[in-house]
Amino acid sequence: MASVPAPLARVIQELVKLPGIGEKTATRLGFHLTRTNRQDVEALAAALMALRQEIRMCSVCCALAATDPCDICTDARRSDEVLCVVEESADLAAVERSGFRGRYHVLQGSLAPLDGVGPDDLRVTELLQRVGKDAVREVIIATNPTTEGEATALYVAKLLKPLGVRVTRIAHGLPMGGDVEYADTATLGKAIEGRREM
Amino acid sequence: MASVPAPLARVIQELVKLPGIGEKTATRLGFHLTRTNRQDVEALAAALMALRQEIRMCSVCCALAATDPCDICTDARRSDEVLCVVEESADLAAVERSGFRGRYHVLQGSLAPLDGVGPDDLRVTELLQRVGKDAVREVIIATNPTTEGEATALYVAKLLKPLGVRVTRIAHGLPMGGDVEYADTATLGKAIEGRREM
Repeated sequence: MASVPAPLARVIQELVKLPGIGEKTATRLGFHLTRTNRQDVEALAAALMALRQEIRMCSVCCALAATDPCDICTDARRSDEVLCVVEESADLAAVERSGFRGRYHVLQGSLAPLDGVGPDDLRVTELLQRVGKDAVREVIIATNPTTEGEATALYVAKLLKPLGVRVTRIAHGLPMGGDVEYADTATLGKAIEGRREM
Repeated sequence: MASVPAPLARVIQELVKLPGIGEKTATRLGFHLTRTNRQDVEALAAALMALRQEIRMCSVCCALAATDPCDICTDARRSDEVLCVVEESADLAAVERSGFRGRYHVLQGSLAPLDGVGPDDLRVTELLQRVGKDAVREVIIATNPTTEGEATALYVAKLLKPLGVRVTRIAHGLPMGGDVEYADTATLGKAIEGRREM
């Protein structure tokens, strides 16, 4: 785009690499950044620069963290008895928002043989070590309800059970505010299968 | 969000300030940036840092540019006789993509009395000076087909006509690939009004 000045074209070119940002959105954002508060642009640049320098992996739970061990692993008010296993740190944030106050373990992925992701690529060894030596009594597996997430859940459960802990899976069913009429058959099937006394 | 490490939370907080980026999108982008190629993140940060330092206004056409005067104003292969007036530099880029190869003038906005934008906030004086002394024979007004853009077009046209140049407005009508059935009445009205012999 000869019509876009080079410094702006570079910003657009970098924004386009982000997921869900096409050329139109990137161009709109780029022009916005030329007009907006200069401090905001520099704050964003500084935050991006700091991101990869300051973020690390917690060596206990394998989550993204600013410190090692992370704030959650060092929080004495949390229960050591319940451990929630998630695929990614973003999932941890979602479970945390739901009010869960136990510990976490981030697998950093799910089994996806077609994409070349096998058991050795997940943080499973770290999980087994923690469950073996810590006071964990229950492991809640909160991997995604997808083919990969389900396979990962089964794989992890099989390894955990011999350690004598209770292994549970988060419930699948209709989302709150959902509609029976429009639910897909797999979800509705899971919802009926998982029905509870009321 | 206590569950998101501070360096990531800062990135999310800055991304949320961008137009069309809500908290969910910002969070998704933020987590993506922790996983993606580190060079890409730093290239984006560097491009953002450079943006406001390197970009300036062309003192001739008032467009955003890396140099002053800009590449378009110094391009000897372009016609000096036709000048296209647009609201923003983003509009210039769009007109340029359509194949126009004359000169441009960027008003840097449109008349919006309700938002406190009056004639003095637009780059109209610069336009009149150019038209008065340059070889301009036709001014094409390509402001947006909105209330503000139309008002701006009328205002600019009134000032330009006494200078003895031809003043034209880009055509309004059905967009290519559009559908007569679903066209709004204002657009269809303009399309009929602007009908041409075939």
